[in-house]
Amino acid sequence: MTNGSAGDELARFRSSIDNIDAAIIHMLAERFKITERIGEFKAREGLAPADPQRESEQIARLRTLAAEAGLNPTFTEKFLRFVMDEVIRHHSAAQDSSNDNS
Amino acid sequence: MTNGSAGDELARFRSSIDNIDAAIIHMLAERFKITERIGEFKAREGLAPADPQRESEQIARLRTLAAEAGLNPTFTEKFLRFVMDEVIRHHSAAQDSSNDNS
Repeated sequence: MTNGSAGDELARFRSSIDNIDAAIIHMLAERFKITERIGEFKAREGLAPADPQRESEQIARLRTLAAEAGLNPTFTEKFLRFVMDEVIRHHSAAQDSSNDNS
Repeated sequence: MTNGSAGDELARFRSSIDNIDAAIIHMLAERFKITERIGEFKAREGLAPADPQRESEQIARLRTLAAEAGLNPTFTEKFLRFVMDEVIRHHSAAQDSSNDNS
């Protein structure tokens, strides 16, 4: 535990982290809403679930944005793959549940 | 490839994903700037780098926020740990480089 001004300064830093994390969580919630709609849309239109060219473009774009923002591009690519893996997990779960209903 | 209105709709969804990803990348860049300052601050004040109680509080808070926003709490916890691991990696790298200079 820390007391006085050192504790205050740490609390201020942590308050900023908490605000940023809340913003990211809400952005991610919105992102998954959209990927869910994309999944439904692709199924309806008979499009393949995965699109490797689109994924390569996303990775390249985010690596560039990250570098400009001072964020490690390799971490950024790992982050995007982490999120994309969850999207694929959602789509597979949705497909399983749809198969269960057929 | 898709043509016409189906392609247009997919492009609209993807444009939203791209905007959200850019927002998240910039939030993460800012987050790492702050954790870097926290690391320097803790080193200066002689505070331990890790704080398990703070981490538990962060996880509990974000799981609640995620549930309210319709995001999977388990994914959210995995996401926070993914980011925290990178913070630890940064701090270790900074410490190694500081040791090299001593």
